[in-house]
Amino acid sequence: MNRRKFIRHSGIASGMILVPVSSLSSCDYKKTQKPGKMSLRFAPFDLQLKHVFTLANSSRSTTPVMLTAIDYEGHTGYGEASMPPYLGETQESAAAFLSKLRLDRFASPFLIEDILTEVDGIAEGNSAAKASIDIALHDLIGKLLKRPWHQLWGLNPDDTPMTSFTIGIDTPEVVREKVKEASPYKILKVKMGRGNDTEMIETIRSVSQVPLCVDINQGWKDKQHALDMIYWLKERGIVFVEQPMAKEAIDDLAWLHDHSPLPIYADEALQRLKDVESTKGLYDGINIKLMKCTGMREAHKMANLAISLKMKVMLGCMTETSCAVSAAAQLSPLSEFADLDGNVLISNDPYEGMLIREGKVTLNDSPGIGINVKQKIV
Amino acid sequence: MNRRKFIRHSGIASGMILVPVSSLSSCDYKKTQKPGKMSLRFAPFDLQLKHVFTLANSSRSTTPVMLTAIDYEGHTGYGEASMPPYLGETQESAAAFLSKLRLDRFASPFLIEDILTEVDGIAEGNSAAKASIDIALHDLIGKLLKRPWHQLWGLNPDDTPMTSFTIGIDTPEVVREKVKEASPYKILKVKMGRGNDTEMIETIRSVSQVPLCVDINQGWKDKQHALDMIYWLKERGIVFVEQPMAKEAIDDLAWLHDHSPLPIYADEALQRLKDVESTKGLYDGINIKLMKCTGMREAHKMANLAISLKMKVMLGCMTETSCAVSAAAQLSPLSEFADLDGNVLISNDPYEGMLIREGKVTLNDSPGIGINVKQKIV
Repeated sequence: MNRRKFIRHSGIASGMILVPVSSLSSCDYKKTQKPGKMSLRFAPFDLQLKHVFTLANSSRSTTPVMLTAIDYEGHTGYGEASMPPYLGETQESAAAFLSKLRLDRFASPFLIEDILTEVDGIAEGNSAAKASIDIALHDLIGKLLKRPWHQLWGLNPDDTPMTSFTIGIDTPEVVREKVKEASPYKILKVKMGRGNDTEMIETIRSVSQVPLCVDINQGWKDKQHALDMIYWLKERGIVFVEQPMAKEAIDDLAWLHDHSPLPIYADEALQRLKDVESTKGLYDGINIKLMKCTGMREAHKMANLAISLKMKVMLGCMTETSCAVSAAAQLSPLSEFADLDGNVLISNDPYEGMLIREGKVTLNDSPGIGINVKQKIV
Repeated sequence: MNRRKFIRHSGIASGMILVPVSSLSSCDYKKTQKPGKMSLRFAPFDLQLKHVFTLANSSRSTTPVMLTAIDYEGHTGYGEASMPPYLGETQESAAAFLSKLRLDRFASPFLIEDILTEVDGIAEGNSAAKASIDIALHDLIGKLLKRPWHQLWGLNPDDTPMTSFTIGIDTPEVVREKVKEASPYKILKVKMGRGNDTEMIETIRSVSQVPLCVDINQGWKDKQHALDMIYWLKERGIVFVEQPMAKEAIDDLAWLHDHSPLPIYADEALQRLKDVESTKGLYDGINIKLMKCTGMREAHKMANLAISLKMKVMLGCMTETSCAVSAAAQLSPLSEFADLDGNVLISNDPYEGMLIREGKVTLNDSPGIGINVKQKIV
């Protein structure tokens, strides 16, 4: 806090006495707002995956989420925290976090910078729980303004990217089958870096010539091998490479960035706004995920920062309902690529919103994040 | 333009034929908008200065501006280009520039990213003329949403800074008189770097202990002299230093930045978003002026970029009406300091908007940029 803001917040400059934070009421915030109060509701929900999701060390058929709703003056904004187990948050941790928030202290959802600063300060981490507040606030504000966020951000909804569909590592037979099923998608994502890289690509290319991107998940250990692979991939119609080497391998990543004929995107190397600047010179772009970066407001700042730094943006997601995916999609006209297939992977989506039409992220004109409630959970 | 966007814009991907840009109509833009068309009006206007403005090589009693208005569906957004002669734009150049713009090609003012990209591409330079479109569009959008921009940006209007009032170089008698007249202001700006630096400060300090900032306008030529002066100034209650040395003196500025006990702000060293990154490591903050950076949208991106780079923001202005000053003020909760006294210096302001109350930028709740028309010019 700088000196001016300290003086203002502490009341010294205006001759007020210092009061403990706990006694601050909404009258300390903007006084000219309408007198309505925001109230937060939340409910745990388990997403049912259409197919069992297999990673190196585990497989699972559900993903736990926390669905949120903020009520204010007859409107309700919806949000979501998606918490795949390997990221450390749980429905219990999200409930504990959300229980600490006192939204009724704020006179208006439009004080979103103040609100999200307070949310961020409640505890370290908890980025998905934080995102569930951010998304609900954005949905609420958009509904109050009767406009979708892509419009409030001044973006052209025709500028949305194609979204990729992920093909997991599997036997050649299964991979060929999955690629055929994914024919509506105009770009496929291939998980690589586990030893059968060339087999995966050759299997896919035996049945499809669609553009591919590859996600190495830090799997390549040697920079020359990485560069050789990237040249090999380029000849086979791969359009970009995600997180090729360990995020700590700064020198190798800088060398690879200087030599690579394909764009390289950072994923594990960054989470939030503060991490973006350090990716410059090592990567050509960044993968922004709402559940890692605490939501739409920070994601929007990250996208604009990356573009200001002459880097590119892609948008990713976890397994999520149409709530969080539609929130991310609002931002997608700023991105080169999207990987927003999270809602397609589940069988019990309580919302409907953004659609994938012929592989392209397709925004609607509904206000806020652009979703309808199909099944009331929260 | 990247490959994806080229394909989309050129129509290759969807099998359309290529058409010349001149034949594009609004139906090429978003089809779901209401059918209203925007129309632009503009009128030259000469601001009458309350006091003759003296610079090293010239003096003047008027500042030429171009006032703009964009009409759309019963609403009107107002804008302004202020063009002090030394910056190179004129009422003629602004009229020529504005005449080239075809706003009726766009289906909605909400497509502001597309519109301003087109505006920026009409010609190099013309930053004030560009700002006059940007400001009018923001005013219009805010009126359509019935909200002021500080609220649409999610900022707390209580977070506005104090604004400085500039004390020009003059005889000790005149300086003392001006300082007494400026008593409502809680911070004064002193123009320095013309050889009588210590005399100016000592004259002011003989009648006032108010915090000061100093604007050197690149006037110091030697880095050790600059550092000695900054230490001398710090002892006399100066709170920051603006553009101490020539913007080209990169090494000297980096050294000064490393050693200075006071924050140093860039002014002449930057104009637009593309310039911000290069100021890091040389300055602690940037002075953003709408007339140099083409308007509110780019200014907002610059402020967020600077904050992301852990730099500070101040907002400056030219001699302007309440239109452009109120537009800049919407952004001021993001700034540490403001130098938004442009409208106070003129006697024929056709608008009223942002006010300075006890030295503090004070925003109102009126939609858009928050102005009322007192005298209809455009």
